[in-house]
Amino acid sequence: MRISELAAASGVSIPTIKYYLREHLIPAGDVTSATRASYDERHVEALRLVRSLHTAGLSVAESRRIVELIAEPVEDAAAVFDVLLAVHQATSSGRGEAELRPETRALADRFGWDVDADAAAAAELQAARDAVAAAGFEIQPQVDEVYARCITEIARAEVLNHPSTSLAEAVRYSVLGAVLLERVLLAMRRLAGATIARQHVGSFRPEGVAPDEAGDQASEISSA
Amino acid sequence: MRISELAAASGVSIPTIKYYLREHLIPAGDVTSATRASYDERHVEALRLVRSLHTAGLSVAESRRIVELIAEPVEDAAAVFDVLLAVHQATSSGRGEAELRPETRALADRFGWDVDADAAAAAELQAARDAVAAAGFEIQPQVDEVYARCITEIARAEVLNHPSTSLAEAVRYSVLGAVLLERVLLAMRRLAGATIARQHVGSFRPEGVAPDEAGDQASEISSA
Repeated sequence: MRISELAAASGVSIPTIKYYLREHLIPAGDVTSATRASYDERHVEALRLVRSLHTAGLSVAESRRIVELIAEPVEDAAAVFDVLLAVHQATSSGRGEAELRPETRALADRFGWDVDADAAAAAELQAARDAVAAAGFEIQPQVDEVYARCITEIARAEVLNHPSTSLAEAVRYSVLGAVLLERVLLAMRRLAGATIARQHVGSFRPEGVAPDEAGDQASEISSA
Repeated sequence: MRISELAAASGVSIPTIKYYLREHLIPAGDVTSATRASYDERHVEALRLVRSLHTAGLSVAESRRIVELIAEPVEDAAAVFDVLLAVHQATSSGRGEAELRPETRALADRFGWDVDADAAAAAELQAARDAVAAAGFEIQPQVDEVYARCITEIARAEVLNHPSTSLAEAVRYSVLGAVLLERVLLAMRRLAGATIARQHVGSFRPEGVAPDEAGDQASEISSA
């Protein structure tokens, strides 16, 4: 099909398609003349993927890296794991090179996580917790325990319910799962938090009441 | 203290402090002469907060809104809840105005979440799931159930373990918890996912093996 037909089939405008072609976010068409190229179903699918990555908030550079990673042929299961690490590296806001401090290693150990499995994720976790502490915010130990247990359960469900029957499919699932599901999980947390906060909104005591006097109810206000 | 002393005390450069003053991200100093102002401990704290919001990835406009929300006096617990909703609204990438479709309402019902408690979060959840579907990615029903249960447990722990004894403190905790802990949770998921994927990396079967033949092991590859 021609670029105008590709635009109609994908719902993406011609200028945007040309931009994606220039940025190598979608594969080039088959050249049919000096000024024309032909596109097919692969291009419609590639456009769908790039639009999703854009909606998920990825930059052009991050999206290009993700598209490359999905396209690269992998030879065995270990390579699928390498692709996952590359995704984490490419989309980490933290400094992947950061030295891990002993307390970060101790925290990971306590929660059963292997910092050597993914240096970028471990560095990102350290940076994220540093930012929280720098704001003068303390994560309560009992909340931290729930985080560790629940997040491990989520990660386990994701890994063990993998639907793929091929390595190429496994790569696609890993990569998209890593980048697209984050926003889903955060939106769920916000909605669940608002629901629970609303249920408890009446039970918070007015300013000046000490925790002992207010009892359990003093703590029942949102942090979500 | 003078601006140079504020810079030394906070670790933030003078040009950056001046930028934050212009953008009303931190309160103005007390004017002491035509060209001088004096700053105190409140400014050091305000700078710390703004730096944390910046590290968390918030834009200047989002940060300004958060700073305003924390500073606004609240009169009762219901107002704390309103502040939380305002934070969700200010930092939602989704269209807060989006019409919820019946299946989004049904999903929230099934998971025990009240879409009327937080329209911005519900719209964000719908948009996030739409982006996932648009990429041709399907969230497995059993994974979705784990998400719902675990995320609800996380939100409940956050709400019920609130350490605040005053409304002002409750606002601060709500606002910072909403925006700063997201990055911590995502980094935890990545590290937990990499740990579990690495443990199962050897058990994924080569391309072309049907799920029936490969048994349980075929599904043991990362999606984190």
